[in-house]
Amino acid sequence: MSSTYGRNLKVSIFGQSHSPAIGVCIDGLPSGFKIDLQELGNFLKRRAPGQNSHSTARKEADEPEFLSGLVDGVTCGAPLTAVIRNTDVRSGDYDSLKDIPRPSHADFTAYIKNGESRDFRGGGEFSGRLTAPLCVAGGICLQLLKLEGISVAAHIVKIGNVNSQPFDPVNISESEIRRLQKAEFPVLDAQAGERMLAEIETAKKDGDSVGGIIECCAIGLPAGLGDPIFDGVENRIAAALFGIPAVKGVEFGNGFAAVGLRGSENNDAFYIEGNSVRTRTNRHGGILGGITSGMPLIFRAAFKPTPSIAKEQDSVSLSRRENVKLAVTGRHDPCIVPRAVPCVEAVAAIALYDILR
Amino acid sequence: MSSTYGRNLKVSIFGQSHSPAIGVCIDGLPSGFKIDLQELGNFLKRRAPGQNSHSTARKEADEPEFLSGLVDGVTCGAPLTAVIRNTDVRSGDYDSLKDIPRPSHADFTAYIKNGESRDFRGGGEFSGRLTAPLCVAGGICLQLLKLEGISVAAHIVKIGNVNSQPFDPVNISESEIRRLQKAEFPVLDAQAGERMLAEIETAKKDGDSVGGIIECCAIGLPAGLGDPIFDGVENRIAAALFGIPAVKGVEFGNGFAAVGLRGSENNDAFYIEGNSVRTRTNRHGGILGGITSGMPLIFRAAFKPTPSIAKEQDSVSLSRRENVKLAVTGRHDPCIVPRAVPCVEAVAAIALYDILR
Amino acid sequence: MSSTYGRNLKVSIFGQSHSPAIGVCIDGLPSGFKIDLQELGNFLKRRAPGQNSHSTARKEADEPEFLSGLVDGVTCGAPLTAVIRNTDVRSGDYDSLKDIPRPSHADFTAYIKNGESRDFRGGGEFSGRLTAPLCVAGGICLQLLKLEGISVAAHIVKIGNVNSQPFDPVNISESEIRRLQKAEFPVLDAQAGERMLAEIETAKKDGDSVGGIIECCAIGLPAGLGDPIFDGVENRIAAALFGIPAVKGVEFGNGFAAVGLRGSENNDAFYIEGNSVRTRTNRHGGILGGITSGMPLIFRAAFKPTPSIAKEQDSVSLSRRENVKLAVTGRHDPCIVPRAVPCVEAVAAIALYDILR
Amino acid sequence: MSSTYGRNLKVSIFGQSHSPAIGVCIDGLPSGFKIDLQELGNFLKRRAPGQNSHSTARKEADEPEFLSGLVDGVTCGAPLTAVIRNTDVRSGDYDSLKDIPRPSHADFTAYIKNGESRDFRGGGEFSGRLTAPLCVAGGICLQLLKLEGISVAAHIVKIGNVNSQPFDPVNISESEIRRLQKAEFPVLDAQAGERMLAEIETAKKDGDSVGGIIECCAIGLPAGLGDPIFDGVENRIAAALFGIPAVKGVEFGNGFAAVGLRGSENNDAFYIEGNSVRTRTNRHGGILGGITSGMPLIFRAAFKPTPSIAKEQDSVSLSRRENVKLAVTGRHDPCIVPRAVPCVEAVAAIALYDILR
Repeated sequence: MSSTYGRNLKVSIFGQSHSPAIGVCIDGLPSGFKIDLQELGNFLKRRAPGQNSHSTARKEADEPEFLSGLVDGVTCGAPLTAVIRNTDVRSGDYDSLKDIPRPSHADFTAYIKNGESRDFRGGGEFSGRLTAPLCVAGGICLQLLKLEGISVAAHIVKIGNVNSQPFDPVNISESEIRRLQKAEFPVLDAQAGERMLAEIETAKKDGDSVGGIIECCAIGLPAGLGDPIFDGVENRIAAALFGIPAVKGVEFGNGFAAVGLRGSENNDAFYIEGNSVRTRTNRHGGILGGITSGMPLIFRAAFKPTPSIAKEQDSVSLSRRENVKLAVTGRHDPCIVPRAVPCVEAVAAIALYDILR
Repeated sequence: MSSTYGRNLKVSIFGQSHSPAIGVCIDGLPSGFKIDLQELGNFLKRRAPGQNSHSTARKEADEPEFLSGLVDGVTCGAPLTAVIRNTDVRSGDYDSLKDIPRPSHADFTAYIKNGESRDFRGGGEFSGRLTAPLCVAGGICLQLLKLEGISVAAHIVKIGNVNSQPFDPVNISESEIRRLQKAEFPVLDAQAGERMLAEIETAKKDGDSVGGIIECCAIGLPAGLGDPIFDGVENRIAAALFGIPAVKGVEFGNGFAAVGLRGSENNDAFYIEGNSVRTRTNRHGGILGGITSGMPLIFRAAFKPTPSIAKEQDSVSLSRRENVKLAVTGRHDPCIVPRAVPCVEAVAAIALYDILR
Repeated sequence: MSSTYGRNLKVSIFGQSHSPAIGVCIDGLPSGFKIDLQELGNFLKRRAPGQNSHSTARKEADEPEFLSGLVDGVTCGAPLTAVIRNTDVRSGDYDSLKDIPRPSHADFTAYIKNGESRDFRGGGEFSGRLTAPLCVAGGICLQLLKLEGISVAAHIVKIGNVNSQPFDPVNISESEIRRLQKAEFPVLDAQAGERMLAEIETAKKDGDSVGGIIECCAIGLPAGLGDPIFDGVENRIAAALFGIPAVKGVEFGNGFAAVGLRGSENNDAFYIEGNSVRTRTNRHGGILGGITSGMPLIFRAAFKPTPSIAKEQDSVSLSRRENVKLAVTGRHDPCIVPRAVPCVEAVAAIALYDILR
Repeated sequence: MSSTYGRNLKVSIFGQSHSPAIGVCIDGLPSGFKIDLQELGNFLKRRAPGQNSHSTARKEADEPEFLSGLVDGVTCGAPLTAVIRNTDVRSGDYDSLKDIPRPSHADFTAYIKNGESRDFRGGGEFSGRLTAPLCVAGGICLQLLKLEGISVAAHIVKIGNVNSQPFDPVNISESEIRRLQKAEFPVLDAQAGERMLAEIETAKKDGDSVGGIIECCAIGLPAGLGDPIFDGVENRIAAALFGIPAVKGVEFGNGFAAVGLRGSENNDAFYIEGNSVRTRTNRHGGILGGITSGMPLIFRAAFKPTPSIAKEQDSVSLSRRENVKLAVTGRHDPCIVPRAVPCVEAVAAIALYDILR
């Protein structure tokens, strides 16, 4: 407990990697909203495995079936539940993992928490596969936000040691956002993107993995969303973001880089534009005192390198309490970051729509 | 909404910088616990203003009065409410700020959110002063955690561009923790500490400010605390941490630095020690899949430089909708980080005790 | 919002009468619990339609499919989701109801709340059919409570104007509870039961309906469960009980009848039995100050007569804004009370297990 | 846990009968609302002790001090905290009660729950005195509801065995509501009121107590408030209502009386009035499917006779585990019902405003 997020929009995620299905129940959607299922499908495809060489070979349609809340493609106001069947399941791949936890994976903590009865197959409820229903919820929220004139997009700013260009935090255009949402490998600097792909490919050949940083923005947000202390926009996004496996850090605006600056260098001067109050720079990432300022919301999430690697590692036998060697077989992404881009957008969209609702 | 945090222990913070009082209501404390008021007082003193040259000159006793929940110093099981009177209030200092928001402060977003009726005096409910009741709650939780064999301590690892030594994430001793808890300026490297103080002093002289990074650990945590997806230890600490003013980033274990490592470099090998499963390294910061591994919990919070600086800045007149110059007077910390150390400990203690409870 | 109940055990119900499926997601079950699926099936059968002449003719297998949280019939600690397909759906029966709300049914308020997009078929999410997933959750909780030595049972004490014998609130035996749990028509006075069935039959012949009162008990509860003010056992049971369609009243212990008594007549004297403190009478229904006393928990729920009746009634055309006559066709229970008995047990079990957990 | 109620408006109550103060923290009030403190004072006076012969002799000013959230009498958007000092405290009156629980009071369950450290003085946090901060919150919500055109009023329909006239559920006028709000002893039938007062007086002379039923209405509610299943208006009012000490039952509309009626007798026919849909009768109490219909909201709460009576009763010594006799001294209401009328209004107002917000 708890796999439920949100106050006004409650998103409950369920399922394990190898259970009959995974899914999401969303309580609090408005009635009368026609979900663009084609667009939702395109969004889910960006997260889906098996799309290209740098992702796991597990191929699944990942088409959600809507069990409730939708009548003829239109929300009816009742909780919407969508499920995705787990079809391409090779549980045998994981049998050896029951006794030997993969380093830096949740295998060990799942064992401590849920004991022998845990669902160890494919990482159980800790599997990255659970981000599929997260993206179903997020994809719907993205469409609802668009109605309010709010757009959300994320891209990769770092893979391993290769950096790409970050957003210009003051000027992000709708067209730039649309381009990123359609990109197979979303980066602002195409050449950096090539080097990133090479980095991933090299890691894969080495039986190893790499991490990365995803930067996300939301534009069109009205000023005044969020609350002080525990219910700020930062708190609420962070509270959901660490739900994406492998996220180990989050920063808003200048984030950790603000530390090396003086106040006079990090502060964002206000000015009048038309009748609006804006800031000339946006080191605050669109949030002051937990509340949106009307400038673009900007945050970054750090993903550690995928812990499942082919290289031999030191681990233990839980039953025999002795040190053993482990070489993880099965299908794993050498880098989870590209597929995590829509997940970050999904989290941002869910958190923002929950605040707006 | 909402100034309430927690599931099993509900901490509700109230008050504004210049309201009659600030305080906290804590629901869910066990009955029969004798609060060490002396120790709590010492803890609060670490956060209190006016303790030394690098903090604001505002001096307040900040002694909490317990209105409920405590009988003869012992918790009775009813909600505990503690209030701190706001005595040394010079509201006049802030009158000019009603119309001119301080850059990168919450003045502007408070205006958008609460309009003309907002309490603009001293930052209202966005004031760092609200961390005093946070520390009352945190100080009590620290004592309750100690009963369970859990110790929490934080220190400064960066001020401006000066770095100090981080924790050895595998070996943190009780004596090291006790030393930090008593230190006037908690750092592991005393010489770095001197340079940090110099950095703060220089910024002060320049009418400017600096930020920093606080690292926090918790040792003695049992493995198995926390939950997958939205209720992981990381999610819950992050959700509270951004409640401390000026926090703009948080990372666990290797955090953002993990990005530059291969999986084989970032993974923590398991091994058997006695009958326990431990990891040889602790890049995961004591949390795997949102759940404690039994290794020390390690996280870092980035604080931006204090936005209130004496230097002249560009701002706007909200009423006249025109650009103006602003020079903030009043009493402000050139660096909030030293006083934020107990606040970070408080947040960690509240989040962890809430999970344990 | 919200179809989610509970603090430590979160029960989220979804589905509409004619959606592809209805179901429940239960977050917070312990791992390692083997659900007795046979027993759960028997429990669900007590609520299922088409079991006997006094219930609707709609026949459905109502067998839950477990999509997550269960591995080989044993809970794994992840959220458990069970769905029941809606197979025997005759939406055509309801077409006329889109424009003409049934008196005292939720048709009108659903229209106001969710507009034209509401799922009006069969009452949508307001349908009594949603108590099926409620009973899935309740049936599992009943099994978990049994492990703790706690038994829950309900029976009918009134149908129309026919009364049956209530529980002896001081002495309720396990065998009495087991008998009720297996009874086709659970009453303590078999002859009253016959008269009740006759009352239902008469109403049916008249194209009319009758209501009733269900009394529920829980024995084996430890003293000390629940909390003062808003989180008492009474508050929490009541908060869930009104989730069962047609419930319009709830009372604990002597309830409304206590009003006519003096304090000296209604108070329950304490006495020592063995080393325990007990009360000689149990007019408090096992709860004092919101907290269990260790005596049997007793409460009653009042069910209004089923609003769907064959008799012609006055209603309105929502589109034409004019008065019209309505005769409800389709399949409806002349009395929902017998099938509501397991629903009341389910609510009690969910609320109690949530408190215990 | 938990003394906090509400989703959009969070009301946290704290304090014990003999703690330094009792109070309430209200999170979620809009900014810019000028509280009519005179009107609030009048409302609190209706609940205050010592107002007339039928209430306890304990006299307290019960004037709330606003510690936060209010600037010059106007809400500023930050959590509002109000405290009432406990001044007229005679703890000695209760010393004997530490070991001997009063029958049907929370003394015993408080002992089980919180052990020796509980605050037994005056009933601790279970004291009816905690309804004072509840009324502070409720009084503010009543004023906020009035802005939306919603009025709430309660009156006494039964004391002991004396009945007074209930509301006409279809026609309740503003003037009737205003009259009740100002009445010293709010009843619709003045002669019944006289007999009720006599009933209370007789009980008092006998060293005994009587209970009663309070009926409450809200008019001006828009249709469409509330949600199906667990978040209906009935669920939410009931969840708060049992927080008032001595409440043992609640019913909406016809409530328990609906059981003896046929569907054709209990259903409320719809008709068109102007452009609105109304019902000719209002047996549903203004709620269908958990959602307001636009007709007056009507509910009743049953109060048991005050358990604290002067008559000698059987109880036990908790320490010696033996049966003893108990005669409660101290100041107690022979009938809590008159003072509970504003408490019921307060609960209704808080629940409704939370739903509206």
